[in-house]
Amino acid sequence: MDRKREKVAVLGAGSWGTALAMVLADNGHEVRLWGHNSAQIEEINQNHTNKKYLPGITLPSSVMGYSSLHAALDGMKMVIMAVPTKAIREVIRKMMESTSESVIIVHVSKGIEPDSLLRISEMIEEEMPEKLLESVVVLSGPSHAEEVSLRHPTTVTVSSKKMDEAEKVQDLFINNHFRVYTNPDLIGVEIGGALKNIIALAAGISDGLGYGDNAKAALITRGLAEIARLGVKMGASPLTFSGLTGIGDLIVTCTSIHSRNWRAGNMLGKGQNLDEVLENMGMVVEGVRTTKAAYQLAQKFEVKMPITNALYHVLFNNVNPKDAVDGLMSREKTHEMEDLTDILGGRK
Amino acid sequence: MDRKREKVAVLGAGSWGTALAMVLADNGHEVRLWGHNSAQIEEINQNHTNKKYLPGITLPSSVMGYSSLHAALDGMKMVIMAVPTKAIREVIRKMMESTSESVIIVHVSKGIEPDSLLRISEMIEEEMPEKLLESVVVLSGPSHAEEVSLRHPTTVTVSSKKMDEAEKVQDLFINNHFRVYTNPDLIGVEIGGALKNIIALAAGISDGLGYGDNAKAALITRGLAEIARLGVKMGASPLTFSGLTGIGDLIVTCTSIHSRNWRAGNMLGKGQNLDEVLENMGMVVEGVRTTKAAYQLAQKFEVKMPITNALYHVLFNNVNPKDAVDGLMSREKTHEMEDLTDILGGRK
Repeated sequence: MDRKREKVAVLGAGSWGTALAMVLADNGHEVRLWGHNSAQIEEINQNHTNKKYLPGITLPSSVMGYSSLHAALDGMKMVIMAVPTKAIREVIRKMMESTSESVIIVHVSKGIEPDSLLRISEMIEEEMPEKLLESVVVLSGPSHAEEVSLRHPTTVTVSSKKMDEAEKVQDLFINNHFRVYTNPDLIGVEIGGALKNIIALAAGISDGLGYGDNAKAALITRGLAEIARLGVKMGASPLTFSGLTGIGDLIVTCTSIHSRNWRAGNMLGKGQNLDEVLENMGMVVEGVRTTKAAYQLAQKFEVKMPITNALYHVLFNNVNPKDAVDGLMSREKTHEMEDLTDILGGRK
Repeated sequence: MDRKREKVAVLGAGSWGTALAMVLADNGHEVRLWGHNSAQIEEINQNHTNKKYLPGITLPSSVMGYSSLHAALDGMKMVIMAVPTKAIREVIRKMMESTSESVIIVHVSKGIEPDSLLRISEMIEEEMPEKLLESVVVLSGPSHAEEVSLRHPTTVTVSSKKMDEAEKVQDLFINNHFRVYTNPDLIGVEIGGALKNIIALAAGISDGLGYGDNAKAALITRGLAEIARLGVKMGASPLTFSGLTGIGDLIVTCTSIHSRNWRAGNMLGKGQNLDEVLENMGMVVEGVRTTKAAYQLAQKFEVKMPITNALYHVLFNNVNPKDAVDGLMSREKTHEMEDLTDILGGRK
């Protein structure tokens, strides 16, 4: 492919930011990878490794690490936002201190802000003056960072209110092992990515209780139905939930022991309470915050979300996980399609 | 639940037939389990075990084994057909030699007959005189037999042209750990169950090649899209493919090392050819026959099925598995929704 060389800043030198910086470097772009830990940035520049987040991987030498946000952003028109959801507002505020040119923001995080109930693209729009924000593009899909850094085949989806900007991002990232598709349904892509973490927690609980693949498949299937039900009420297309950012990402997150949310659920299923789990994990479990947000969204949009509801009470009201899962399984016999017809609006 | 005691014959004493006989016995029905191997039947009656198919499991003593088909069927109005797809016609012909009363047949097999391209309910209708066949009901869903025999939570779907008969079957099987839903879409339920085995073979190949969860999630997602595309052309509802017998069963089959089709694909990915794989498996790999049938169906209904097509050439035309998977991944960049909008007929 005849590709224009772009200047791209990747903010966040965790596993996903670093893996995406590698894809961009492979594609010949000028890549600046910003992180706040200067020892880590030195390691990236001197040894071309980021051992804490991508052990065993050698980065392309063209990935340049920066610990100064101001220097990393200088002259950059394209910014990949790869920091945890709850750090996004703070990082954007810092960006705004030294930016005078408008940029495209590509966010690659998955969450919903509790209380404000905003999607991530909405949070970014809220924080940035319109004249400095060319557009927000989301990149999402079934993509363990470790596998991307090994150049194993991976597919993701990009979406935006401005699809020509999403296509620029598609061109930026696409190569033979990292396939990028476009989807105009921004709401569906963001909701699917965020809410899958709830179902991953539930799947982890089921596994932790010693239940098997049958129970987990039922949870994933019915979980997808309730995510789609909410998403459609919020304005998403039902089709998006059958795609890479819906069922695709859900499968990866619920069936891999590498998934942080699955692991947290697994500990809950084995009898630990939420405080113990979070202490043992020692890092953010995005699904916990998202469960609270989704519980609030379900009430706001008056949508039945039995799995989210059960999980909310396990996490925040000390309901026993076994009682919660058994309760989900023993609902009255019913037509399977009741749930699904809701999604497309009463079709029978 | 106040439940009527029914007389039920289960034909086929493999793992699935035996597990279903256990569910029926748990529900208080009179259950006769027929198998052609008289030593195995003696084991069932004397020791209440079926060690070859369900090691470590004790059967309820009320499950009675029969090696005479005639005796097993005597007075039975409800027959569970749990034999391999390619034995179904033969077993029905034998049934017809000694049956004079009409029965409900519940089939629990997953396949499409090559060349005739018939679904299993259609094969059964073709073999049985109308006056002896009350109705055919299919029972399908994400259900490893081993987990059902351990009474772990499991959900399945029943469907039939006559939904009141499907509801009888729902009442027959349902209990607290074995949840049964109804779905009027017989075609969708049968097609989903059959074609998932193709995607399981492809997922096994991807794993065998050393690719990761990202690639497998992409195959499952796009596999579901092509199954749905064919199913809808054949008259199924697109919603069914988002349900237990669609994505639910697909997940279980593609992500469990217990899945026979996944294991066969895994060996192919590691470099064995089809003959070697089938010899090493030593049992029927239903997905191989189904790939041939689906390849024929795709041509007949003029539907694009890139994964089925690639797998067909790997299985029957010696195409290298790595070339096939890499070929699937490197299709031109595209809008994700092109595939999916096809399913609902051009919606954008």
